[in-house]
Amino acid sequence: MVARTRIRSALAGEGGGGEVTVKGWVRTSRVGKEVAFLALNDGSSLANLQVVAEPALPNYAEICTVGTGAAVAVRGRLVDSPAAGQRYELRAAAVELLGPADESYPLQKKRHTFEYLRTIAHLRPRSNTFGAVFRVRSSLAQAVHRFFAERGFLYVNTPIITTNDCEGAGELFRVTTLDLARPKFAGGGVDFSGDFFGEAAGLAVSGQLEGELFAQAFSDIYTFGPTFRAENSNTPRHAAEFWMIEPEMAFADLRDDAALAEEFLRYLCRHVLDHCQEDLAFFNEHIDPGLVARIEGVAGSSFAMMEYGEAIERLRQASVAFEYPVEWGLDLQTEHERYLTEQVVGGPVFVVNYPQQIKAFYMRQNDDGKTVAAMDLLVPKVGEIIGGSQREERYDLLVARMEETGIDPASLWWYLDTRRWGSTPHAGFGLGFERLIMYLTGMENIRDVIPFPRTPRHAEF
Amino acid sequence: MVARTRIRSALAGEGGGGEVTVKGWVRTSRVGKEVAFLALNDGSSLANLQVVAEPALPNYAEICTVGTGAAVAVRGRLVDSPAAGQRYELRAAAVELLGPADESYPLQKKRHTFEYLRTIAHLRPRSNTFGAVFRVRSSLAQAVHRFFAERGFLYVNTPIITTNDCEGAGELFRVTTLDLARPKFAGGGVDFSGDFFGEAAGLAVSGQLEGELFAQAFSDIYTFGPTFRAENSNTPRHAAEFWMIEPEMAFADLRDDAALAEEFLRYLCRHVLDHCQEDLAFFNEHIDPGLVARIEGVAGSSFAMMEYGEAIERLRQASVAFEYPVEWGLDLQTEHERYLTEQVVGGPVFVVNYPQQIKAFYMRQNDDGKTVAAMDLLVPKVGEIIGGSQREERYDLLVARMEETGIDPASLWWYLDTRRWGSTPHAGFGLGFERLIMYLTGMENIRDVIPFPRTPRHAEF
Repeated sequence: MVARTRIRSALAGEGGGGEVTVKGWVRTSRVGKEVAFLALNDGSSLANLQVVAEPALPNYAEICTVGTGAAVAVRGRLVDSPAAGQRYELRAAAVELLGPADESYPLQKKRHTFEYLRTIAHLRPRSNTFGAVFRVRSSLAQAVHRFFAERGFLYVNTPIITTNDCEGAGELFRVTTLDLARPKFAGGGVDFSGDFFGEAAGLAVSGQLEGELFAQAFSDIYTFGPTFRAENSNTPRHAAEFWMIEPEMAFADLRDDAALAEEFLRYLCRHVLDHCQEDLAFFNEHIDPGLVARIEGVAGSSFAMMEYGEAIERLRQASVAFEYPVEWGLDLQTEHERYLTEQVVGGPVFVVNYPQQIKAFYMRQNDDGKTVAAMDLLVPKVGEIIGGSQREERYDLLVARMEETGIDPASLWWYLDTRRWGSTPHAGFGLGFERLIMYLTGMENIRDVIPFPRTPRHAEF
Repeated sequence: MVARTRIRSALAGEGGGGEVTVKGWVRTSRVGKEVAFLALNDGSSLANLQVVAEPALPNYAEICTVGTGAAVAVRGRLVDSPAAGQRYELRAAAVELLGPADESYPLQKKRHTFEYLRTIAHLRPRSNTFGAVFRVRSSLAQAVHRFFAERGFLYVNTPIITTNDCEGAGELFRVTTLDLARPKFAGGGVDFSGDFFGEAAGLAVSGQLEGELFAQAFSDIYTFGPTFRAENSNTPRHAAEFWMIEPEMAFADLRDDAALAEEFLRYLCRHVLDHCQEDLAFFNEHIDPGLVARIEGVAGSSFAMMEYGEAIERLRQASVAFEYPVEWGLDLQTEHERYLTEQVVGGPVFVVNYPQQIKAFYMRQNDDGKTVAAMDLLVPKVGEIIGGSQREERYDLLVARMEETGIDPASLWWYLDTRRWGSTPHAGFGLGFERLIMYLTGMENIRDVIPFPRTPRHAEF
């Protein structure tokens, strides 16, 4: 086919002077007195390229009927545009209609609610908002990989299907090839010996444990892949399928972990400010007026650190009526997190060293005997965005903790093995990719930052 | 913690002269007459750093007992090494034992079979071969993302959980939160209305259909994520969970598709030659003696193209007894593919325009009425490595083809919608990431290029 110029490039004047061919979808069309205008978009940028077609074109009558949503190819010359808000427009020498669209096209030029657009998730990427969302998502994914590659971290694909359910069987999706209509039983339960994997399997809720195994060979690793929660909660922040980023470092403690998390989040903020300017300006104008200033704030600040015990004290002294009463041992809720980062610190803050009983079995026990080396990074407007910890590297303490929390050490023999031979102090954290995108775009519903969201009773497309 | 120098950097002489601290795992230890040697590896390179510890060190007696697999931190000075095969060694000023390892450590210095190492997949990354495999895997993943980013392709995360089973229900893993012990029935089958998604759901076998939706908004996109096949086949080339790369281009035909595939594969070959030299040399020496020459061959050649019809003629003329008899309509088997690329062409070749009846419903019908615009890229030693096609963009033809192949058009209403409004000629292909890694490392079993492979009756770790 004829090589095409991307609209992003054409808008920047690339190929100006000579002829270019652009291809894209018509966002709006308008027939003036002596000329027809088509606003063309190919997804490479938020802005459309204005195409000007004159009656001398052999198919001018057809061009005048081209509707919103149609796909066209236009050959022509980029010329200075007299219109405001655009430097160039394309004077058409030929317009070819590739795929028409009639008035039944659902994305006619008018405002649609996000709720409605979710029902046409196959078409919403052709709207301004979702074009911007998914460009930012893609650009951020590239930045995540680049950040870790530049720092010598190994990328590891941890398994999606797992037989390890220690992190919460209640939230696990079952994966099976059994005939659900004819269950077989053994030993008082369903007999999984005839299932594909010969035992009960499910979808992973995290890649951390396997990530730790790789950190004990490559020192610095990260995962970036889909994770799953069968949590029956319909909130703007929960999806059954989402992507997680989980770095893990051998020879590292909680301070190293916090330093990495801070560098990472600031890098990503800097990235969207530098590389997603057009889309960010759109979000700042139409979605979340404080967005750019908030991101600049995070990119430019150094993060505070506060002991959990101090956080509890500050919350107790607050003249705010929290829904959840504050006392030592409380698992901080979003209301508390936001108070700490917004009112107490006025910026990002790591809360560290949480009570052992509210944290996972693998977190490293502190010398006080009651807290563990956990950290949560809290940021204004959302609360927790990153959660991490130093891991318990001492075999005996880890086994004791598993037994206390009802996890059979034999079921995680391979995890324990890394503490038997060549154990190292190590630490890592997790960042939900969609939470990050929400934070950096101002979009308020996780369903609107995932191409095809999976939530209770919804797995369309 | 003390900042550490990676062993890859230390071996390159970084910090030479001054003191450095390295941390890693002992691969071998040896006590000489007046000095102890530790070969240290931290996963950053294949090569170990030789640490030389002298009796003057306060814990010299302990150092002499440090076994294979132990984790240590060593502070010292890089000096020229008198030993062959290494430029520098580390003269230790202090050796700290972080995590000991006794003789029960399974990876003692001796040759282990790959079969045995699969049973300790949590430890095998600490071996030479698997260290090299997973470094190459990580580096290639980075190269995949960079290739597409440099060309303006949008990265899209297509859904893992899907209710779309048109690509082969027989190979689908079921995903459910139903109580398998107590199925409910409705309308003659299991009642999925009470399941998490309100209908039967499974794990995606491809992201192509959703990728096409995004290509109809962003023009050039790619997916790179896990896909699943519940295929009960125990072969060295099949896994139940693997990663796929699937680019899709709007405004593109089969020639454009082949051009992208060629550029992509040559880029990845060039990448490992330039960026994974040490590991590649290892594979070339120990795993697959022709490897580097073969990769250089692909990187430097331009790929041939052959019609399916001509391929069949060439195979019929061959003086080779194929297991599967050759006639027009045959779905080429590996024996045929290898004959074509190795004997007929002597290099990579695209076979294009296959009979419609052996290809998927979405491939574009050619004007001859009997073939579709499909392509398979065949390479020496493995046969097919990339499969792709131009997609049927004509609504009526696509619906007719779905009906012929027993797919209910109503179940894919959203896919058909892209042909109703603004349809474009478009094309894409799929590359199995593990197949690529096998091709570029010479490893012959897919179980040995995935961190924790999932195959029938195996989902350990």
